[in-house]
Amino acid sequence: MAAEKGESVLLVRIETSPEDLRGMIAAEGILTARGGVSSHAALVARQMGKVCVCGASGLEISYEAKTVKVQGKTYKEGDDFFSIDGTAGTVYAGQLKTAPSEIVAGLLNGDKAAQATEKFKSFKQLMDWCAKATRMQVRTNSDNPEQTRNAVAFGASGIGLCRTEHMFFEGDRIDAMREMILADTQEAREAALAKLLPYQREDFFGIFKELKGLPATIRFLDPPLHEFLPHAKEQQMDLSRKLNIPVEKIMSRVHELHEFNPMLGFRGCRLGIKYPEITRMQARAVFEAAAEAVKKGFKARPEIMIPLVGFKRELELQVEIVHTVARQVQTEKKVKLTYSVGTMIEVPRGALTADEVAQTAEFFSFGTNDLTQTTLGMSRDDSGSFLGPYQEAEILKRNPFATIDQTGVGQLMQIAIEKGRLTRPDIKLGICGEHGGDPDSVKFCHKLGLNYVSCSPFRVPVARLAAAQAALSEMKSAKPVAAKLAKKK
Amino acid sequence: MAAEKGESVLLVRIETSPEDLRGMIAAEGILTARGGVSSHAALVARQMGKVCVCGASGLEISYEAKTVKVQGKTYKEGDDFFSIDGTAGTVYAGQLKTAPSEIVAGLLNGDKAAQATEKFKSFKQLMDWCAKATRMQVRTNSDNPEQTRNAVAFGASGIGLCRTEHMFFEGDRIDAMREMILADTQEAREAALAKLLPYQREDFFGIFKELKGLPATIRFLDPPLHEFLPHAKEQQMDLSRKLNIPVEKIMSRVHELHEFNPMLGFRGCRLGIKYPEITRMQARAVFEAAAEAVKKGFKARPEIMIPLVGFKRELELQVEIVHTVARQVQTEKKVKLTYSVGTMIEVPRGALTADEVAQTAEFFSFGTNDLTQTTLGMSRDDSGSFLGPYQEAEILKRNPFATIDQTGVGQLMQIAIEKGRLTRPDIKLGICGEHGGDPDSVKFCHKLGLNYVSCSPFRVPVARLAAAQAALSEMKSAKPVAAKLAKKK
Repeated sequence: MAAEKGESVLLVRIETSPEDLRGMIAAEGILTARGGVSSHAALVARQMGKVCVCGASGLEISYEAKTVKVQGKTYKEGDDFFSIDGTAGTVYAGQLKTAPSEIVAGLLNGDKAAQATEKFKSFKQLMDWCAKATRMQVRTNSDNPEQTRNAVAFGASGIGLCRTEHMFFEGDRIDAMREMILADTQEAREAALAKLLPYQREDFFGIFKELKGLPATIRFLDPPLHEFLPHAKEQQMDLSRKLNIPVEKIMSRVHELHEFNPMLGFRGCRLGIKYPEITRMQARAVFEAAAEAVKKGFKARPEIMIPLVGFKRELELQVEIVHTVARQVQTEKKVKLTYSVGTMIEVPRGALTADEVAQTAEFFSFGTNDLTQTTLGMSRDDSGSFLGPYQEAEILKRNPFATIDQTGVGQLMQIAIEKGRLTRPDIKLGICGEHGGDPDSVKFCHKLGLNYVSCSPFRVPVARLAAAQAALSEMKSAKPVAAKLAKKK
Repeated sequence: MAAEKGESVLLVRIETSPEDLRGMIAAEGILTARGGVSSHAALVARQMGKVCVCGASGLEISYEAKTVKVQGKTYKEGDDFFSIDGTAGTVYAGQLKTAPSEIVAGLLNGDKAAQATEKFKSFKQLMDWCAKATRMQVRTNSDNPEQTRNAVAFGASGIGLCRTEHMFFEGDRIDAMREMILADTQEAREAALAKLLPYQREDFFGIFKELKGLPATIRFLDPPLHEFLPHAKEQQMDLSRKLNIPVEKIMSRVHELHEFNPMLGFRGCRLGIKYPEITRMQARAVFEAAAEAVKKGFKARPEIMIPLVGFKRELELQVEIVHTVARQVQTEKKVKLTYSVGTMIEVPRGALTADEVAQTAEFFSFGTNDLTQTTLGMSRDDSGSFLGPYQEAEILKRNPFATIDQTGVGQLMQIAIEKGRLTRPDIKLGICGEHGGDPDSVKFCHKLGLNYVSCSPFRVPVARLAAAQAALSEMKSAKPVAAKLAKKK
């Protein structure tokens, strides 16, 4: 691959799916013809801190010819250059000279010259003011040490969402993952999971190290299993040879896992309920990494998060596994670990029964992406066909996947907070949907009284600013009342 | 086709989809290898009053060979017979003699001998008692005159759900529907819709006639458009020839309409918002049929129901169209029509903002199938893979698609009722999900204070019994209190 030769490559796709993840990691930037602010490409690129332009509908992309046609001209893979500006959403033909901003250079690359600039100093000053003013913390969505390091440099106070499934796509891991999915027995699944364990443990250890004692909310396996299997015949043949499994078996498993509405299907904690061995492996990876951290002399504070909980018993069953594994690892490694367990609130039933769920959950993290999809009955990936007419007709003022729908989704959050606190008055509350990086949504979260928002690393400064502004405007609006009271004396 | 020759045929499929609707209409019975109590096959068969056995997983069905293999034996289309018992879920090889029950024969076929039997008389007596005891009415889900006639004979007090899209699958209509979907301009869409108008008007007239003045809740177009297009290459070629449209165009439209999660996609009122001409045609068909009914001397009481409403403005925009068309038809036909407009409550946001929605909605009908899917974040068609382990682990005691989840979905219904009544104290309330035929769900609906439940025609007697029992048990539980008070005197 060109990227392996050190060339800077751009990933150009009609739209991306989890199968493109390896390409996205290798690419310098991502350009898609379809999708919007909350498409797969946008979400993943944002978290990776990669430049991305989505929904450039003027592009005619041919995968076969390996060309992009635009405005009558044809550009060819390996020959032509594009330059893209993710902030403005502009695509340029040719290779423009680019450079990181002074902030990025100063903070992430430790560039002394950048640190000496006025811009950098102003930024530092602003962030210091934010730190003083804010009540709500800003965490980050991060799946690996590098993202974590960047986010901490931007002032994140921990990880709010570590999507463990992203760890399963890299290198050989995807093969072990596929072996697990194709296994017929619990034994065979456990054997495949045993191969994933060291990778996952290593990832967690790297993350704990970068966090230097800051907390990390780790979400257990969430996406539907079919996302990990190859769908193209050619790749299925490859896998068949690699794993020595008949290709028919792979095809039939892909067919079996096909779902009409995967968003509402066999995913989230439903995976861990049916295959408890997955939860066991993930818990072991977390605790063994934490034990290693303790032995190496630094703190690890994992917060294990069970996704897609709608019934209190789902959480109870998963948490039981987590506690059992924690006890085992502590005995085996002779260490005392600090951890907590909680859940994502991302289906309406979870919010509506938050009093029951809080009997087991030590924290709630609002998964506002999925909560928006279920509350509005609106698929993020399919809403493109009608969101335009909807905004024109003023049914919706804002894209609900970019800015929280306060009336609907916000109401469910409020119900969950009230009910959750009835059972557990000091329950920790956060949000880990993409809304965590949207200033208006951040301000709304402050109003709701959340402890933190979580967003992709590069959005941390914006979220910190919004959180501080929310705190300050609260103080301002409190002032006139105080004046009135004083006068009355 | 064998059915056209008057032979009695059984439709055997791995699972059914809307494309099978014509086959289901032609068949005497339906047998599938996959699916459960709330699968497409079960729902449609129940409404049609056809015998159906779903999820006979022992069958190996080959569409190519036109055979069914079971227990080592092979049965061939056109040669072999199966007999099926929908109540017991049994499949017999060979042709058993079957006969309708005395109730069906006496009520639906007017069979005098059947009417003279003890069984029939007891049934009549029981239904009479129910009529006296009940507070909540039982309506029916029906899309055509025959289903309506059956339901009225069973004692339904109107139609609670007329799914207008079912009308678009029969005969030539599907071609006009497809022409509409493939049209590039509003004009072309209107031309195709004009072809559908007379069919739809005729259907409505036939239904009004059978109802003899009972109300009919008519739901406007709901399913995603791709359900109406052919997906197999061969059928796409056929359509291309028939409509004189390049097959590439058909393929590209199918591709364009493909959705990741169609349940949460471009469907329900979203169709009528983007293509108001669809709503206009449907409103015109309803009102022209109602006008014709008035002229023929009988009453028609349409209640127009807008599906999938989550935002009050969605409903406002659609209702505006309905009122405009109603005024036009009344002027044109010089008649005065009685009608009302309301909405389905089937996404959580609709329930949470019921106070706003009730500003326009004269009635709410809870679409508890979809409300269950969105509230639980659980796809009806995909839950088969984990509902088993869920029931074993006692996460769920009952299948939530068969019996309402009172804690979650029921809570949202309660919120909607309270909020709806705040705005409109006398708002009419019903339920039109499949739960309307489940006794425990019917009793829950009585407790919530609904005006009616609606279920498929053949479930009407069971629902009437459950509604009466709910009313009686309320009276019983009131008695001891009265006794206590008397003693105190």
